[in-house]
Amino acid sequence: MTVPSPVVPSRGRLRPLGLSAVTLRAPGFWARRQQVNGSATLDHVELWLDRSGWLANFDGAPRRGREFSDTEVYKFLEALAWEYGRTRDPAVDARFRAVAARVAAAQQPDGYLNTNFGRPGRPPRYSDLEWGHELYSYGHLIQAAVARARTAGHDEFVDVAVRAADHVCEVFGPGGIESVCGHPEVEPALVELYRVTGNPRYLEQARLFVERRGHHVLSDIEFGRAYFQDDLPVRSAPVLRGHAVRAMYLAAGAVDVATETGDDELLEAVARQWRTTVARRVYLTGGVGARHQDEAIGDDFVLPPDRAYSETCAGVGSVMLAWRLLLAQGDVRYADLIERTLFNVIATSPSDDGTRFFYTNTLHQRTLGTVPPPDEIVPRASSTLRAPWFTVSCCPTNISRTFASLAAYVATTDDNGIQLHQYAAATLETADVSLEVDTDYPTSGQITVRIHRSPTTPWTLTLRIPSWATGSTLDGAPVEPGWAPLRRHFTPGDTITLSLPVHPRLTHPDPRVDAVRGCVAVERGPLVYCAESADPSVDTFSLDASRPLTDDGTGGVTVHGQILEPPDDDWPYTTIRPDPPFKEAVITLRPYHDWASHGPSTMRVWLPQT
Amino acid sequence: MTVPSPVVPSRGRLRPLGLSAVTLRAPGFWARRQQVNGSATLDHVELWLDRSGWLANFDGAPRRGREFSDTEVYKFLEALAWEYGRTRDPAVDARFRAVAARVAAAQQPDGYLNTNFGRPGRPPRYSDLEWGHELYSYGHLIQAAVARARTAGHDEFVDVAVRAADHVCEVFGPGGIESVCGHPEVEPALVELYRVTGNPRYLEQARLFVERRGHHVLSDIEFGRAYFQDDLPVRSAPVLRGHAVRAMYLAAGAVDVATETGDDELLEAVARQWRTTVARRVYLTGGVGARHQDEAIGDDFVLPPDRAYSETCAGVGSVMLAWRLLLAQGDVRYADLIERTLFNVIATSPSDDGTRFFYTNTLHQRTLGTVPPPDEIVPRASSTLRAPWFTVSCCPTNISRTFASLAAYVATTDDNGIQLHQYAAATLETADVSLEVDTDYPTSGQITVRIHRSPTTPWTLTLRIPSWATGSTLDGAPVEPGWAPLRRHFTPGDTITLSLPVHPRLTHPDPRVDAVRGCVAVERGPLVYCAESADPSVDTFSLDASRPLTDDGTGGVTVHGQILEPPDDDWPYTTIRPDPPFKEAVITLRPYHDWASHGPSTMRVWLPQT
Repeated sequence: MTVPSPVVPSRGRLRPLGLSAVTLRAPGFWARRQQVNGSATLDHVELWLDRSGWLANFDGAPRRGREFSDTEVYKFLEALAWEYGRTRDPAVDARFRAVAARVAAAQQPDGYLNTNFGRPGRPPRYSDLEWGHELYSYGHLIQAAVARARTAGHDEFVDVAVRAADHVCEVFGPGGIESVCGHPEVEPALVELYRVTGNPRYLEQARLFVERRGHHVLSDIEFGRAYFQDDLPVRSAPVLRGHAVRAMYLAAGAVDVATETGDDELLEAVARQWRTTVARRVYLTGGVGARHQDEAIGDDFVLPPDRAYSETCAGVGSVMLAWRLLLAQGDVRYADLIERTLFNVIATSPSDDGTRFFYTNTLHQRTLGTVPPPDEIVPRASSTLRAPWFTVSCCPTNISRTFASLAAYVATTDDNGIQLHQYAAATLETADVSLEVDTDYPTSGQITVRIHRSPTTPWTLTLRIPSWATGSTLDGAPVEPGWAPLRRHFTPGDTITLSLPVHPRLTHPDPRVDAVRGCVAVERGPLVYCAESADPSVDTFSLDASRPLTDDGTGGVTVHGQILEPPDDDWPYTTIRPDPPFKEAVITLRPYHDWASHGPSTMRVWLPQT
Repeated sequence: MTVPSPVVPSRGRLRPLGLSAVTLRAPGFWARRQQVNGSATLDHVELWLDRSGWLANFDGAPRRGREFSDTEVYKFLEALAWEYGRTRDPAVDARFRAVAARVAAAQQPDGYLNTNFGRPGRPPRYSDLEWGHELYSYGHLIQAAVARARTAGHDEFVDVAVRAADHVCEVFGPGGIESVCGHPEVEPALVELYRVTGNPRYLEQARLFVERRGHHVLSDIEFGRAYFQDDLPVRSAPVLRGHAVRAMYLAAGAVDVATETGDDELLEAVARQWRTTVARRVYLTGGVGARHQDEAIGDDFVLPPDRAYSETCAGVGSVMLAWRLLLAQGDVRYADLIERTLFNVIATSPSDDGTRFFYTNTLHQRTLGTVPPPDEIVPRASSTLRAPWFTVSCCPTNISRTFASLAAYVATTDDNGIQLHQYAAATLETADVSLEVDTDYPTSGQITVRIHRSPTTPWTLTLRIPSWATGSTLDGAPVEPGWAPLRRHFTPGDTITLSLPVHPRLTHPDPRVDAVRGCVAVERGPLVYCAESADPSVDTFSLDASRPLTDDGTGGVTVHGQILEPPDDDWPYTTIRPDPPFKEAVITLRPYHDWASHGPSTMRVWLPQT
């Protein structure tokens, strides 16, 4: 039976449940975002795809937008497909069909499909593999078609993707162009199309792409070959590196290939890269990518909060990768990072109303940002406030497709039972089991699971105890971070109560993270907190770690410290550094994901200690 | 009489002395570099100008190089002009004439001169003011001609520059194109041409360019208008910002305009911007520019040592600006920053043999760099070792013209006497005074000035006591940092002895420089020191500030501390942060300007305190 989920491996430790089995229930942190996505973001995206001309490109209108603008249409289609899978709303289905028909009409007889290349007045096909994004575009086309096939069945749009995939195999298969795309993405897409269609040709082509990369098959560029991971083969690279989104998408595809081909060496290579990356190259928020210049990850422990790039799409890619590794290997750390990234990167990007987005997610904003014009495409990724649309507008559609499919990441199954990875008010219905999760997590750490239906034989309900949740109790008994399996005869009416301690806590960085030496952060449950101020700057506050952190009852955390009285301007490096004067201060920190929601502000996550 | 010096204002607190009056004597820190420049760098530059085709562009060969490659030829000519002024070597003069003739032949009848625009198959003239660099190119052409006029007299090459300047005034003057160049540079050049020719038209055109900028006369770009200082008028901007080289060149031009027009408001505006910039936006080395992406200065106190951009040319620009402000206002802080920048940016860029260069000057290198190929143009500004030539090769020629004219920055005169700003073995000869400076500064802090010839009336010899030189003595008497004026009847044979304490010292950063919180740096005299290691990384060392710093007798400084034993890879942010294990260690720091001279290494200037 088809599982309506973005990733459906044929083997692995855990199996996905998908949208048909898991439903997020309102009210709830994620249900609200999913609802706003359905009611506002999808409209917003379609409006801007029209306004920018990126949809009309498929109708043969004079070409507008960047080389990869087709993919925003594909990601919009993918979001619509999951939204239809989630809601079964015929209006959503009709919107999908209307846009899909315009895409289909642009396909050439041999399967080629791209509005930027291979047309009169445009560059020839595959004339710029480094920057042209043609295979990347097929990847998103195929992912949209996979979503369609798994939520509505194999229709004409799926045929479009199959024709495109066949064309790719023809042109880039054995004896064809022995190269790869500058931007990975077609790799995981082809494996998923293999999973949908059963045609091994797509898996083999994905395998070829994964194995070819890293052997200098692309030209060198200003940023170096690591930018598109063409510096080292996936199999032998020690760590994720280069352009963060590219790195994540490629690693996700490599896990897919490894899983389907039984290539444990490749799987372990990526898992090892993930562990090293997470230990050395990831922000407290789960964000990845320290550099603006090349949107790249950067060296070990180079994690400056200033101008942290932490692209929203790299967060999406990190969830994609960790999810695949979780399904393959079942290590709880993958689910931990997914939670951290969802609450502090994915939830941070969109505005409350779902129509403005952060492209980058800095951890330190020193100056008041400027409000982007509501009706203009923002030319800069580094806008200091959420913006409606970007020249490179990958993030809004990536958020939209992720929210529409979010229920797929909540739980899995295996031969022993069910695993709950993410906590949200939800219902779960499988052939054997019906259960309900009640919680207002992360405001509260109380989670209640009610069994409505159960097999009569014993099975295991496994709950994830997050790594930060020292002091948790399960049905009143202490439980350690990690997997907490409950194996028993469940009967309808059974209730399991998990209590996670979401009181505020101080977090210290590894001493090798130079940029935040001497600083602490405040976290509460899965949420990272920040100091924010409309005026003046937050940069003169130091936190007194010996004083208690207090919940303020409205989601804020009150902390004590000092406000420095900065000296007059002078050469800032001196032999004698007298302690500057200060005054005592009490300030309230707020969840990071909510920052900049009330106009321009300064913000910082890492606070110096007094 | 013509003063052979890059900047010769008609008014101001101090007057330049120029190359004819001041000679750097071997052996000496700067004399050696000047000698290497003359014997190796000039040949190296000419070889690469040939090899890259940038010289042949003037002969009408198929165009090669970036839009602004003409300027490397002009800066080479400027370097040759100063070198001829310094040495009076006819072979240098002949080289100048040969290259100048090829440039002259490319000038169009109306004065237009650019090998990239306005020719068959090339974009039209002035079709891309944001990025075309046409006026920037004139600026360097004119600066070369100014150097020529002041060292060899008004010849055909000076006429080329005059025709170009007349053309600029025609096209961009009142009633012409009401805009500016994306890269400032023509502004200071036009003022200097006014100073050479006396033609007020050039001053007026420079004034127009300075006043126009900042009113959004250029298109907005991805990096924002601050990139080329078109966000705010020079007169009202609070601080230097945007692309660092552009910011410095523009401010230098604004000082020139203010000086010649008596515009004290404009002069004080730039001086205020300089003070704020130096207090908040300058690295310990004097380097300017924190960002790779847009080669820009960045926000207040955002001075990460990792990937510090600190472009060599921004250092040259900073010396240009501080020198003009010093001449105009006589504030000792300008000379202090010049010293710091010369020893720690300008001296850092070239290799010992003068044929490889740092484009950027980071303060922290975490991984071993790669050796650039000796015969290839390096595509990346961020090469981790010095490279022979770059796609954008502004730095080698900027270093070359600065070294050739370096004696001009050593001393000045005013109605009261002579001021010594920079300490180096040198002779100084004016109409009235002959003196000799003996020192092996900065290895030693002993400086002896011998008077060989002097007026019979009293005059003032003013010595600069650097801001770091607390505890200095002048002829045995204590003297405070700042100006130390000695007014007396000097007689031939008089000797003045200045003793600057160049023992190693610890330097602490302003607490608002977040990126180096909890760290110290070691300086010795004007030199910044660094930890360097070929293997392993320097990143696990912490310095014990309670232990003495010791001169090792070979220019190194021995320090005590600990080497951390890093824990295994794990999530790097934790509630409990136990102190990691360590072992005691003693390491020797070396002068920063000399780093990476012996192959790939890791390096850091700022060291964590134990």
